[in-house]
Amino acid sequence: MNKTKPDRRAFLALSAGMATGLAGLAACGKQQAPSLIGAAMRAYGERSPREKSARDAKETVTPGTGSTRTPLQDLDGIITPSSLHFERHHSGVPDLDAATHEILVHGLVERPLVFTMADLRRYPSQTHIYFIECSGNSRAEWNGTGTDPQQSAGLMSCSEWTGVPLSTLLKEAGLRPEAKWVIAEGGDACMMARSIPIEKCLDDILVAYGQNGEPVRPEQGYPVRLVVPGWEGNISVKWLRRLHVVDQPAMTRDETSHYTDLLADGKARIFTFQMEGKSIITRPAGAQKLTHGPGRYEITGLAWSGYGKITRVEISTDAGKSWTDAELQGPVLPRAATRFRTSWNWTGAPAVLQSRSTDESGYRQPTHDELVAARGKFSDYHYNGVKSWFVKADGSVADA
Amino acid sequence: MNKTKPDRRAFLALSAGMATGLAGLAACGKQQAPSLIGAAMRAYGERSPREKSARDAKETVTPGTGSTRTPLQDLDGIITPSSLHFERHHSGVPDLDAATHEILVHGLVERPLVFTMADLRRYPSQTHIYFIECSGNSRAEWNGTGTDPQQSAGLMSCSEWTGVPLSTLLKEAGLRPEAKWVIAEGGDACMMARSIPIEKCLDDILVAYGQNGEPVRPEQGYPVRLVVPGWEGNISVKWLRRLHVVDQPAMTRDETSHYTDLLADGKARIFTFQMEGKSIITRPAGAQKLTHGPGRYEITGLAWSGYGKITRVEISTDAGKSWTDAELQGPVLPRAATRFRTSWNWTGAPAVLQSRSTDESGYRQPTHDELVAARGKFSDYHYNGVKSWFVKADGSVADA
Repeated sequence: MNKTKPDRRAFLALSAGMATGLAGLAACGKQQAPSLIGAAMRAYGERSPREKSARDAKETVTPGTGSTRTPLQDLDGIITPSSLHFERHHSGVPDLDAATHEILVHGLVERPLVFTMADLRRYPSQTHIYFIECSGNSRAEWNGTGTDPQQSAGLMSCSEWTGVPLSTLLKEAGLRPEAKWVIAEGGDACMMARSIPIEKCLDDILVAYGQNGEPVRPEQGYPVRLVVPGWEGNISVKWLRRLHVVDQPAMTRDETSHYTDLLADGKARIFTFQMEGKSIITRPAGAQKLTHGPGRYEITGLAWSGYGKITRVEISTDAGKSWTDAELQGPVLPRAATRFRTSWNWTGAPAVLQSRSTDESGYRQPTHDELVAARGKFSDYHYNGVKSWFVKADGSVADA
Repeated sequence: MNKTKPDRRAFLALSAGMATGLAGLAACGKQQAPSLIGAAMRAYGERSPREKSARDAKETVTPGTGSTRTPLQDLDGIITPSSLHFERHHSGVPDLDAATHEILVHGLVERPLVFTMADLRRYPSQTHIYFIECSGNSRAEWNGTGTDPQQSAGLMSCSEWTGVPLSTLLKEAGLRPEAKWVIAEGGDACMMARSIPIEKCLDDILVAYGQNGEPVRPEQGYPVRLVVPGWEGNISVKWLRRLHVVDQPAMTRDETSHYTDLLADGKARIFTFQMEGKSIITRPAGAQKLTHGPGRYEITGLAWSGYGKITRVEISTDAGKSWTDAELQGPVLPRAATRFRTSWNWTGAPAVLQSRSTDESGYRQPTHDELVAARGKFSDYHYNGVKSWFVKADGSVADA
C-alpha cells in the first residue's frame, strides 16, 4: 500500500542519456577521493553548510508583523522540515517557558481549569500529519503573479503534530449547554485570538506540543498551539494561553479587519474557515531550468485539501488541453500534503505545465478564471486556482 | 483510518486531579503575561534554546569511530528529528560536495555508468517512512542493562526518505546474468563497504538524497546514501560513491570482523541482515519520574519490525503476568516505527512495565531469556528482547 511500483514503461523510455557512460573503469579517478578522518559526532545535528534553502521574509511596516514562506521547490516527500515551516506573526515570536506556561479554560464551563504542559502530557495523545496553510497564501495569484513555488504558494507547510484533542480539555472542564464558540487566545503581545465553532472544537482539533518528533518550534507556537485540520492557518492559534468558552463569536481583529474575503459586490465573506483543494508543481517550476536539454524529467509537486484525502492529481504539459493522471505517493492522508509525480519526456519545444487536484469530497481545484468569476479579484484570501509554469525552448521555466 | 478515537472509558476514568481547578477567574493572573513584540522571523529556524534533548556520544579509541544514540524518551510521533537521528561512524563524517559527487556503477553490467546528483533527480523517485536500526542496538541488554530508552535502544531512528530505487540504476547499467551481489561503498575515509544480495537490490532499496523533506544530513550520508528497509543499519551505506556488481560477497571488514553474531557453540552467524520485531516503552521509562503521584498516566513507546507492519503491541504493568493491547497510532507503515499508547491508572504500588510487539509476519518479540536460549550471551548483535521498567513506590522509574 505504501509501496509504489515504478511504471515499467517509464523505465524503458529512460534509455541512455541520463547518466554518463564509462569506457571501463578509467573514469573511477573522476570521483571525489575519500577524505581523511571526517568530522566528529554531534549532540544535535545541523544540515550541510553547503545547503542554502531558506524561508523568505516578507516584512511589513508594523513591528513584529509579517510572514516567511516555505521553499516548496526544495522539498522532498510531504514533511516540511521544521526549520523551513512558513511563519506568520502579528507581534513577533514570544519567548515562552514550557516549565511555567499554562492554558486557562474558562467561561461557559462547569469547572474552570488550568493546564500546565506536564498536565497535558498525562492525557491520551494523538499524532497526525496535517498541512497548515495561511488563507492569504497565493494572494498575488488573484492578479496572476507568482514567480516560483515559494512565492506562489509557500504559506503552506506540513508537519507531524502530536498533542491532546481539544475536546478532551473541554470535556474535563465540562461544557455548559449554551457553549457555542471557543475563543482561542495566543501568548504573543497582540494576544492573537480567533473564535471557533464548538462543533469543530469537539471534532478534530489538536492542542499540539509536538512537531516532527520534537517540541513545537518557537515560531510555530512553542510550547503549545492549536492545530485545526483543514481550516485557515490563522485559526490554529500559536502560543496558546487561553480558551474562553462563549455563546457567540468574539469578532476579534483577525476575524473582522483581517481574514475576511471582499467580493465583487462589495460584501465580504466572514468566518471562511475552510481551506479547499489545491496543488502546485514544484519541479520543474518558475526560476528553475531544465539543464540537460530535451529528454526525461520528473514532474513533481504537492496537493492538499481541507476536505480530506487527495484522490487524484492530473498533469497537463500543454496548457490544459490534455491531462494525464500523476502517481500519488502513499500513504495518502486526510488534510495532509500529498506528493504527486509523473515522468515527462520534454521534446525541447515550449510547454505549459499545470496540475489540478481532486479530493475525496469530489472537489476539483478550479482554474484562475473560474475562481475570479465566483469571487471577483479583491477576495485576497483563499486563492486555490490552477498554477501554470511556462517552459521555454532554452529550458528555463517562468511564471506563465 | 488515520484518525484515532480516544477511548471513552479512559476519558471518564480521568476525572478530576489532572488539571488545576479555579475559583472563577482569579487565577488568570498566574499566567505568563504576554511579552512585548517578540523575536523576528528567521530564514532557517531553530528549536527553543530551552530545549536540551541531545544525542549521547559513545566514543571509542579509534579516531572517527563511534556512535550517538537518539533520545527516544523525548520523541513524539514516529518521525525522528534529523538533528537527533542516531549516528554510527567508522571514519567520521566526510565533507562531500553534492555539486561534484558521483556514484559509479560498474562490474558485471552491460554499461558502466556514473550518476551525478542532478542525474539522480531526473529519475522517478519514491518517498517512504522507514526505520533504520543499528544491529548493535541494545547490545548491553544481552547482559540485562539499559538505564533509559536512549541507552537501551537509541540506535534506532525513523525518517521520511526520498530517492531513486536502486533497481532503477542497476537496470540502467544492465545486469549481466552472473550478477549476484552488489558491493556498496561509502565515501568516508575507511570506504565502508557491504555486500548486498542482488534480490534485495532489485526489491526495495532506495538511493536516498532526501530526509524529512530536506537533503540527507551530513552524518546520515550527505549527499546520498542507501536505505535498505528492514535490514541492519550498517548495510544502508552512507556517503554512497560506488556500486560494484559482482558474483559473490566481498567479505569486507564490516561483514567479517564486525556485524557477525557469535553463538554459544563458538560458531558465528554471518550476513544476518534481517532486523526482527521489537518494541520499547519510552514513557514512563528509566530515569523518569511519575511526578503527580498515583493516578492516570499515558504509557507510550515505539515498535518496529524489519518484516513489515506492526500489527499488535501488548502492554504489561505486572512484569508479564497479564497483557492488554495498546492503541496503535495510524498510519501503521511497513518497516517504519509505530507509536503505541495506552492510558494507565497507577495505584502507587511498585510496578513493572513491559511491551511486546507482533508484526504482520506473525513474529512476536521474544523475552530476554528466550533470546539467550536461542543465541547465547555473546551474540552482541540483533538484541530485540522485551524490555522491563521498574516503577518504584516513590514514582521513580529504573531499569528492571
